[in-house]
Amino acid sequence: MTQIGEEIHALATRLFPITRSITGDGVRETLRILGEHLPGLTVHEVPSGTRVNDWVVPPEWNVREAYVLDPAGDRIIDFKRHNLHLVGYSIPIHKKVSLAELQEHLYSLPGQPDAIPYITSYYKERWGFCVTHAQRQTITQEGEYTVVIDSDLRDGSLTYAELLIPGERDEEIFFSTYVCHPSMGDNELSGPTVTTFLTKWLLAAPRKFSYRIIFIPETIGSITYLSRNLDEMKRRVVAGYNVTCVGDDRAWSYLPSRRENTPADRAALHVLAHLHPDFICYSYLDRGSDERQYCAPGVDLPVASVMRSKYGTYPEYHTSLDDLNLITPSGLQGTYEALQKCVECLEADERLRVTVLCEPQLGKRGLYPTLSTKETAAQVRDMMNLIAYCDGTRSLLEIAEKIAAPMWTLIPIAERLKAEGLLEVV
Amino acid sequence: MTQIGEEIHALATRLFPITRSITGDGVRETLRILGEHLPGLTVHEVPSGTRVNDWVVPPEWNVREAYVLDPAGDRIIDFKRHNLHLVGYSIPIHKKVSLAELQEHLYSLPGQPDAIPYITSYYKERWGFCVTHAQRQTITQEGEYTVVIDSDLRDGSLTYAELLIPGERDEEIFFSTYVCHPSMGDNELSGPTVTTFLTKWLLAAPRKFSYRIIFIPETIGSITYLSRNLDEMKRRVVAGYNVTCVGDDRAWSYLPSRRENTPADRAALHVLAHLHPDFICYSYLDRGSDERQYCAPGVDLPVASVMRSKYGTYPEYHTSLDDLNLITPSGLQGTYEALQKCVECLEADERLRVTVLCEPQLGKRGLYPTLSTKETAAQVRDMMNLIAYCDGTRSLLEIAEKIAAPMWTLIPIAERLKAEGLLEVV
Amino acid sequence: MTQIGEEIHALATRLFPITRSITGDGVRETLRILGEHLPGLTVHEVPSGTRVNDWVVPPEWNVREAYVLDPAGDRIIDFKRHNLHLVGYSIPIHKKVSLAELQEHLYSLPGQPDAIPYITSYYKERWGFCVTHAQRQTITQEGEYTVVIDSDLRDGSLTYAELLIPGERDEEIFFSTYVCHPSMGDNELSGPTVTTFLTKWLLAAPRKFSYRIIFIPETIGSITYLSRNLDEMKRRVVAGYNVTCVGDDRAWSYLPSRRENTPADRAALHVLAHLHPDFICYSYLDRGSDERQYCAPGVDLPVASVMRSKYGTYPEYHTSLDDLNLITPSGLQGTYEALQKCVECLEADERLRVTVLCEPQLGKRGLYPTLSTKETAAQVRDMMNLIAYCDGTRSLLEIAEKIAAPMWTLIPIAERLKAEGLLEVV
Repeated sequence: MTQIGEEIHALATRLFPITRSITGDGVRETLRILGEHLPGLTVHEVPSGTRVNDWVVPPEWNVREAYVLDPAGDRIIDFKRHNLHLVGYSIPIHKKVSLAELQEHLYSLPGQPDAIPYITSYYKERWGFCVTHAQRQTITQEGEYTVVIDSDLRDGSLTYAELLIPGERDEEIFFSTYVCHPSMGDNELSGPTVTTFLTKWLLAAPRKFSYRIIFIPETIGSITYLSRNLDEMKRRVVAGYNVTCVGDDRAWSYLPSRRENTPADRAALHVLAHLHPDFICYSYLDRGSDERQYCAPGVDLPVASVMRSKYGTYPEYHTSLDDLNLITPSGLQGTYEALQKCVECLEADERLRVTVLCEPQLGKRGLYPTLSTKETAAQVRDMMNLIAYCDGTRSLLEIAEKIAAPMWTLIPIAERLKAEGLLEVV
Repeated sequence: MTQIGEEIHALATRLFPITRSITGDGVRETLRILGEHLPGLTVHEVPSGTRVNDWVVPPEWNVREAYVLDPAGDRIIDFKRHNLHLVGYSIPIHKKVSLAELQEHLYSLPGQPDAIPYITSYYKERWGFCVTHAQRQTITQEGEYTVVIDSDLRDGSLTYAELLIPGERDEEIFFSTYVCHPSMGDNELSGPTVTTFLTKWLLAAPRKFSYRIIFIPETIGSITYLSRNLDEMKRRVVAGYNVTCVGDDRAWSYLPSRRENTPADRAALHVLAHLHPDFICYSYLDRGSDERQYCAPGVDLPVASVMRSKYGTYPEYHTSLDDLNLITPSGLQGTYEALQKCVECLEADERLRVTVLCEPQLGKRGLYPTLSTKETAAQVRDMMNLIAYCDGTRSLLEIAEKIAAPMWTLIPIAERLKAEGLLEVV
Repeated sequence: MTQIGEEIHALATRLFPITRSITGDGVRETLRILGEHLPGLTVHEVPSGTRVNDWVVPPEWNVREAYVLDPAGDRIIDFKRHNLHLVGYSIPIHKKVSLAELQEHLYSLPGQPDAIPYITSYYKERWGFCVTHAQRQTITQEGEYTVVIDSDLRDGSLTYAELLIPGERDEEIFFSTYVCHPSMGDNELSGPTVTTFLTKWLLAAPRKFSYRIIFIPETIGSITYLSRNLDEMKRRVVAGYNVTCVGDDRAWSYLPSRRENTPADRAALHVLAHLHPDFICYSYLDRGSDERQYCAPGVDLPVASVMRSKYGTYPEYHTSLDDLNLITPSGLQGTYEALQKCVECLEADERLRVTVLCEPQLGKRGLYPTLSTKETAAQVRDMMNLIAYCDGTRSLLEIAEKIAAPMWTLIPIAERLKAEGLLEVV
């Protein structure tokens, strides 16, 4: 049953051809499509040149066309065929160059001859084209090549979107994902598409916590967002996840927050330990995405990552091989469901206290199953263990860890015991 | 040398034939015999129907006779032959039944064909007989069987006994054991008999702590006792042990209190680690006796268990095979001595401080042995290590753990150093 | 490159022949020579009979000559040949004795037939000679032996030296080493000679901390020193090392302070883990030198030991085999350098805080290397990790441990970032 996974994959397929970067119309178009799914998604524009903490919002970049003609006039490289062919943030150029000069501006991967690499140069002005190494080895003819990059790199704005979902409490759970990668699948259409469907699910029922979901360009986007929202977030955010690399089906990964033991970490570890116990537990030293900003000293938001194959660890990473085949409906849906479980654990994590002294007599309340099976025996054991630790000092998640039971099996038991008046919230 | 063990076993042998349950004359007779050993043992009666926390004291149960006649009039099952033949708390009945109806009330263990199982039904009215599976397979004749259970199940009282031994301090060490099992050895004549001899030893000398020893029916007895004594116990009890399954000689077991690191736990772990280092360390999740009440949230007494083969883990458990051969003099005496060591550790566990700066000069006080042997070298090493850690922050037990020496080797050294004025109690 | 090691070894060679004990002119001569290297080294004399904590300063001991003549008048044992031949603190004697009586006063090691053992009797009056077991087996002739010990054992004083190096702060780092061993190399000319050269290095540049370096007789010397300086030391000393057994090149050893986790311990462990990861980690239970006084209850100075082969663990220990061949220039220099690294870590260990929110933009400050190599990649990684953890709660050493980098690679990076205004001291 991967119906949701199919829908997520379909959304990724629709978004795939769009040329995204850290600014520009590709981001706007992407957010517009996500907005079709997420009523209330609000788009913000931050002008180029705005100071954001230690950084400055860069010029906006847009490309109309970009190609290379060989000496015979054949269009041997064309941005229209694959947007990875153009180095991100390439300056506009229209020029004839020799083979030697052209080679200085070509990027390829000798070790992966069929992959177009993903290269950007946001903060140093340059131009370049990326090609497969196989193609590059055919570009040997001396003569005059024509290089055309019809791009704008000028004052404009950085674009991001946010959705605030009010809950019963002001405390927030935060999700961040990024929309700055051109046509690639796991890193990074998996992030915004899974986050979109997770948000739809969050919107579908009342929630205890409020939710803050943002779609931003990586690094400069999170820095920009924090420069405008940090004070409020520090007051409100109790847990958060950076959603990236969540679409392939080959591995499960956890990367902690810098403080390592926040509610976000504990929920993620609990979910992974029970659902995918062979997950890879990375260290914060292995970080590489927006947790670098969210967990920076002085920011210190409780943001962890639940991923499939982590960025930088799989061979297709940052190449054209990270395509729509790499991400799968089951891969996308798996992470969607794991993040749901994290939300459920966080929402239900409260300190409970048993209301009677000594063990309660469960029999007189019909809490012992009349039919004794292996399953009911496990339920009774979980119920007795839950009661044994509900002393008001441990939260439900801590009890789940203590008694080695998945928290989602305890939640309905706790509800039942609360209904019977045997448990109360501290 | 198992003289004490022989005496304990003899007491168990004397108590063995008595029909005990959670109420009734068998408990009273058992407590009367224990009282011969324990002057001052006080018996309490709590009327049926008394509310005790979430529970109610049940009716009192007594049996005069119980048997089954086969169609030929032969007495094929008779409570007089073994009191396990009758399901505990069976209602009175005098009735002719078909083979089919009889079978619905028979209990046996196909996997242990020579064992009579131990079955009770305290809180649901029913009747039944327990037989070996070997015998059951011979009960095949169609016809009219006569079932006679001449029992009372009516308002009476629940009976328990306690002994309070005043010590130098009001702080108490608590021992609890239960007297509700009919003719079985390890679970549970070992508990009350070892506790009786341990109490005799406690009575034989002045003690620093006061002692509270109780003989109760399991579960409903501990709940009843706590409903009457919890406030005082919470003020006074510094350590306690639930004494059960202490008579076979096949294993050593430790089951922690819920809080896991109470003085009772630390003393038990220290004693077992030094005397029986191959002991099995259970989790509180493996609990199954009165620690379920003593360690319940809000009760939270520091009660741990030192056992031999734990209840539920050995094949003879809760069957007629748990008999006087399963418990042995050496088994009983071993636990008796381990619990003595726990008491000694708890009594001597105080924070000490060395009275001089730098190492004291032991030579001028004659504290160095004049004859140097391997044994005296170990003594000097223990003495120097003890002095090195007596800084007033660690207790003697904590120092013993730190320097990896049994606490009972340090106690006489500490006494000697106190006499020399080199150590003082903080 | 063992130039410093050669110089240290040369100093040890010069000091080797001197007869040292816990008091006497040998100590004074040793300190005089060390004073040639250490301007400002101050010598103190403490009269015999002075009470020092639980002890009393013993009489002063000096020897002019000591020998044994065999029945033929041949000088078979002579203190002039090796000062280990005489039991330390032997009382004066001039007497003719039988072979049997002589044997009662001879000490040798059957298991090490070529070693003269090192024996002392500071606190019980006795006399004796130490010989190789090989020689002892030749002393078989019955007859009259002449024993001459021309020693003084009378009121005098205990001699020690100290050097106080003022730094930017009153807080002190403390080094203690001892000068009471006669002609032996690792235990113990390595200690005072390495300490002397380490002190010369400390004197050569301004330091953040003040330094207290003492040269004392073991045990009675440290007790005497503490009886006079403890209050001040407790206020000032933030870390210290007992320098002993630092000259052979066969092993690295760490022995903790009693509190185990002082700055001295953390620096030593960090240095050894990175420079000599196969070091042996001893317990405080393995102690045997002046840390017994410095870490005693109520004294509790943060004093650890970085050693090569620990006292008591190598076969030559406390025999004439512990000679100038056992200690080597590379062995001595290795410990000299390890202790330097400890000093550097302690001096630079401060809590730092990044001054900007989110990651700083390193590119605009030229902090990214323009040439990308494996080495520069490691530098960038260390820089980013350092910044990631500079939140004002962890010290630089704690960050080094967290990010698994030697602290000495982080110190210049931190200096650079401080110069750029990106880090500030908390």
